[in-house]
Amino acid sequence: MYIYSLWLKIHSTSTASVSPKFLESNIRVKPDLDSLGAVGDLGWYCIGAALWAKEYQLPSLVTSLPDVTKNSAGVTLSCTASLQWEDKTVAIFHCSFLSGTSMDLSMCGTNGTVHLNDLAIPFQEDSATFGFISGAKFAELHLGWTKKLEEQRVDSKLPQEVLMVEELAGLVEGIKKYGHSPDGKWPSISRKTQLVLDAVMKSIDLGCHPVKL
Amino acid sequence: MYIYSLWLKIHSTSTASVSPKFLESNIRVKPDLDSLGAVGDLGWYCIGAALWAKEYQLPSLVTSLPDVTKNSAGVTLSCTASLQWEDKTVAIFHCSFLSGTSMDLSMCGTNGTVHLNDLAIPFQEDSATFGFISGAKFAELHLGWTKKLEEQRVDSKLPQEVLMVEELAGLVEGIKKYGHSPDGKWPSISRKTQLVLDAVMKSIDLGCHPVKL
Repeated sequence: MYIYSLWLKIHSTSTASVSPKFLESNIRVKPDLDSLGAVGDLGWYCIGAALWAKEYQLPSLVTSLPDVTKNSAGVTLSCTASLQWEDKTVAIFHCSFLSGTSMDLSMCGTNGTVHLNDLAIPFQEDSATFGFISGAKFAELHLGWTKKLEEQRVDSKLPQEVLMVEELAGLVEGIKKYGHSPDGKWPSISRKTQLVLDAVMKSIDLGCHPVKL
Repeated sequence: MYIYSLWLKIHSTSTASVSPKFLESNIRVKPDLDSLGAVGDLGWYCIGAALWAKEYQLPSLVTSLPDVTKNSAGVTLSCTASLQWEDKTVAIFHCSFLSGTSMDLSMCGTNGTVHLNDLAIPFQEDSATFGFISGAKFAELHLGWTKKLEEQRVDSKLPQEVLMVEELAGLVEGIKKYGHSPDGKWPSISRKTQLVLDAVMKSIDLGCHPVKL
């Protein structure tokens, strides 16, 4: 699905309610292990979703907001950041080990909005739904709307992890059996996600100053 | 409903798809009429929702984000802003005359999340719904979640506008018939909403610098 839109505002959360033991000893809160903390573990999905919605154009400006929370070792446990594109698209994401579990993605564009609440881990394995509304206006006298949010369902015979392994196996087969060049799509997506993630971390380190990409 | 939460992240949008004629001649885009533009007309509801969720504590820091769009007369047509409280609660809102119609409110807190998509103008007059999830975790092996978002419905025999007039009439009656003092609740809410709104406008004027409240 490609969200064509002249104006686009993206909002995403990836938060998990972790245990006190996790906060004490998990590798994701240790500066010498996964020092990217909640940004690396959870923000990754939000950044990926925003890049997907923008067809993998990189934002021009990345700014963390001042609500950063770090542990005593300096690892980020919770933060919010904004990504800004030249065309004035803005994506805001929030990732946290300190909130209830949430994985939201909302996109509000010129012609409609999309909402979903189970971005990276779907509520169920065999189908997923998103809310969609397009061309809605307030009704006369503002007595309701001309259209309501409608649920759209996408069925999948196989869980996403199986599809991922199938994709990888197909790419390997293409190289080994048919002499194809290594695929450029997934490395490029990963690298762009990492570039934005690094800019978020840099903005946090700079005390929430904007970082140009 | 009072959302008690140690950690709280609020997100709200109020966007309307207006006509070219509106953008040319409506009082809301005229600097000598309603110079607050989209912030005054639409952002008001987002700010009000955030203050409601925080039991009308004022934020300490208000920062507009760099995606501001103004018309040629300098009136704001679209913007995003963050409100930050001392306790690290953050609220992000986006208001725009340039997007499809949306009125979202999401709150992600320590123990659960709340979502609704018809904040100020409900989809229908006699009931409203919001999605709620509390205490959810990812299931074992991340095969789904332990709980799904559930729809909660609130019925109302009367439309909100009737309830507002009833409330006002009751307050007037209290003063005229029973000698009560004028009510302090609604003026205080309006004034606080305006204070935050003015801080958003100031931050826009200052080129997105944070404004202390």
